[in-house]
Amino acid sequence: MSQIQFDLSNVLADAIGSDHGLTMEELLADQARCSAALAEIQARRDKDLRWLDLPYAQDVLDSILDYASSVNGRFKNIVVLGIGGSALGNTALQSALGSPFHNVEPPPGVARLFVLDNIDPDLVGEFLDHFDPDHTLFNVISKSGGTAETMSQFLIFRARLVQHLGEEGHRDHIVVTTDKENGVLREIVEREGYESFIVPDGVGGRFSVLSPVGLLSSALVGIDVKGLLKGAADMDKRCQNEALMENPALLYALVQHKLHEEKGMPIAVTFPYSHRLANMAAWYAQLLGESIGKRLSKSGEEVFRGPTPVSAVGVTDQHSQVQLYVEGPFDKWFTLMTVGTGDHEVKIPQTPASFRDLEGVDYLGERSLRELFQAERDGTRIALTDAKRPNASIHFETITAHTVGQYIYMMELAVALMGEFYDVDAFDQPGVEAGKVAAYALMGRAGFEAERERIESASCATK
Amino acid sequence: MSQIQFDLSNVLADAIGSDHGLTMEELLADQARCSAALAEIQARRDKDLRWLDLPYAQDVLDSILDYASSVNGRFKNIVVLGIGGSALGNTALQSALGSPFHNVEPPPGVARLFVLDNIDPDLVGEFLDHFDPDHTLFNVISKSGGTAETMSQFLIFRARLVQHLGEEGHRDHIVVTTDKENGVLREIVEREGYESFIVPDGVGGRFSVLSPVGLLSSALVGIDVKGLLKGAADMDKRCQNEALMENPALLYALVQHKLHEEKGMPIAVTFPYSHRLANMAAWYAQLLGESIGKRLSKSGEEVFRGPTPVSAVGVTDQHSQVQLYVEGPFDKWFTLMTVGTGDHEVKIPQTPASFRDLEGVDYLGERSLRELFQAERDGTRIALTDAKRPNASIHFETITAHTVGQYIYMMELAVALMGEFYDVDAFDQPGVEAGKVAAYALMGRAGFEAERERIESASCATK
Repeated sequence: MSQIQFDLSNVLADAIGSDHGLTMEELLADQARCSAALAEIQARRDKDLRWLDLPYAQDVLDSILDYASSVNGRFKNIVVLGIGGSALGNTALQSALGSPFHNVEPPPGVARLFVLDNIDPDLVGEFLDHFDPDHTLFNVISKSGGTAETMSQFLIFRARLVQHLGEEGHRDHIVVTTDKENGVLREIVEREGYESFIVPDGVGGRFSVLSPVGLLSSALVGIDVKGLLKGAADMDKRCQNEALMENPALLYALVQHKLHEEKGMPIAVTFPYSHRLANMAAWYAQLLGESIGKRLSKSGEEVFRGPTPVSAVGVTDQHSQVQLYVEGPFDKWFTLMTVGTGDHEVKIPQTPASFRDLEGVDYLGERSLRELFQAERDGTRIALTDAKRPNASIHFETITAHTVGQYIYMMELAVALMGEFYDVDAFDQPGVEAGKVAAYALMGRAGFEAERERIESASCATK
Repeated sequence: MSQIQFDLSNVLADAIGSDHGLTMEELLADQARCSAALAEIQARRDKDLRWLDLPYAQDVLDSILDYASSVNGRFKNIVVLGIGGSALGNTALQSALGSPFHNVEPPPGVARLFVLDNIDPDLVGEFLDHFDPDHTLFNVISKSGGTAETMSQFLIFRARLVQHLGEEGHRDHIVVTTDKENGVLREIVEREGYESFIVPDGVGGRFSVLSPVGLLSSALVGIDVKGLLKGAADMDKRCQNEALMENPALLYALVQHKLHEEKGMPIAVTFPYSHRLANMAAWYAQLLGESIGKRLSKSGEEVFRGPTPVSAVGVTDQHSQVQLYVEGPFDKWFTLMTVGTGDHEVKIPQTPASFRDLEGVDYLGERSLRELFQAERDGTRIALTDAKRPNASIHFETITAHTVGQYIYMMELAVALMGEFYDVDAFDQPGVEAGKVAAYALMGRAGFEAERERIESASCATK
């Protein structure tokens, strides 16, 4: 089983010059600071950062696999009702480890998977028009049960199920993932007797993909969830090592911080050269953006910190974003995600005799599509490097549950460590509250009358 | 038929203060510069910027509609083989104006639409595994015919078609969109006798969605392409007006430029509050990034210019990116895309009697999902404004071909005008060449031997 590899050659001054590149000496000079950050995070493993131990929850894994096998073949559709950290990981896993055409033509006996992570009535209404709740299992995910979007969807689909299947019959079509004992959704589970799974304490939304939040829907469509946890555990062990060059999470966090703060690069581009990994970049965008984007430092000083995550996908975005990446401002650095081999090899056929004189197509004949794909990837890497743009790579020899699990754990730990380097609390999200409060006020929720008055008196914002 | 509305209230100093906001006086002081930019672009309408006249190509529209009606019902799948500007618009139109579940359950008699905008063998190979070319129509799109990705896909699918249907039979399954007379693909059309459409001169890839590039696949799945052109024409007329406050494209371009250059905001976030419009933001990301991201000014000075486009979607990304947007650095401005009403109204049912004592769900009962959706949108707008983040809105009363056509034309013209304000050539993409040349060299294409030697001697970049 192969390890994913982090390669920072093209981030170094040797490759791109010292205006935009880091030197190995600079990086190694931060070893002590890195060791301290790692120790700080690891010390919280048994306290508030319980997500660090998710790879070892064997009993949870067993219960998920048991449940999945008990419903196997019973449903045509699995629907995740969740948003943000209760949706992005699910989508990313399905894209990485399932077929891009899974929902158009699911494998025999396997359900389709829909992650309904928006309440746009044009999405939810279309879903209701197309899919029969009788053949659908809904996985309602919210740690607190206070997520307005998810609870509205729950009420809508529950009513539809009850209408078709009755109070008793509807219960088998709902499985809930929420807090062990607190919150409205746990209370509902108890009153209704729904099957349920636990979002453990110390596991925030954006760090929850390796809990039942991400694993249950994956298991239900046949993804190797055991392999995911094995990969994560392997990365955990690798990242116990405080030696900077041996610890990819630590090195990644340090490179991110130094390129941002010392080289003036506030934009972090995740650039998978893989159609399958495209949604992993969206998962990471939440992890990075929500964890490090903070108004206050740990000591409460106003700092307005945070890199901006951007995602692109190769080769597609060579024809969209690479112009800007190669020629625009020196305000970005790049993490390519590269893949060695895949499940499919497609050969470009011999150029037909009638086209053989056409220079623009002839060189393609009898090459493999992967050869072209990798040549374009390497071409872009060379162009970025020649243009002095820092570009690291995370290399997957193959995309498997095991390598994907490694990546997830690496990035979660890296972002936790970035919190130390950026000196912000990587585990809260106070900035999300203001908008929620305003929305509650506009909805007329009890207790938010004062906010409503404030909003109504400041008319400009709601025009 | 309603006009889309551009509202810049929350970009103004009155709403967010003068550190981050613009004053109306500042904007109006640039009227002369704006008039000059508009005159400069409009003067090129009959020369190299022929895309400005695409809304009036009645004969092209007729030929597309004729072709679409001639193949109506004959194919189960339409596949676009194209990339970048030959793909992003197609995807955006289908998302905006079709169902999100179109390919899972297409309307009776209507084909599925796949835009295969990557050559990842794990995508193309999966496609080959799942779909029968016998029932598929391929629209090969490349102005030059020199696009390696598209030509490889063409060779692969052509061979498959010939194998199943024979040399003669395969021809009805291919329709080509390319240059009128130049390039390999036009030569192939002539040799093979494929049906074909023209990418007119003066229409660059990212400005081509209203040409057959974007219209043909749309017409084939029943999108009202006539309405798109009508919307674009209406916006064209609106934007002939040089009065800044009456010309949304001009105003948008000026706001983008001033917030970037004068308020230090290099990141432009397009934030549709609409599942359907999410892919429009990806289309705009190419348009903005590739047009304005340039190393050289018009006079050839090295300037490394260009805003970075970012896209988010509401309400989903409230749970992913809004934390960063509200609390992070003051380096972003926001364009919300808002929608008045939609095709679906979904009512949240009365809270079941057994949950009515649960405060976190009770307030949702008997409200409409749109009410919640809009309250969250307005809540986010209020939170951004309170945090002094410039946020404009483009409002669609409804999402129709007519309003989408307006938006496309508005943004194309706005980006052309930005080229004047940023003093860069908005219509070339020299930075894409370097990567292509390196890829050709790595593929061993004739004529690129010197580049190959250079690459092989600089091993670091290809590790």
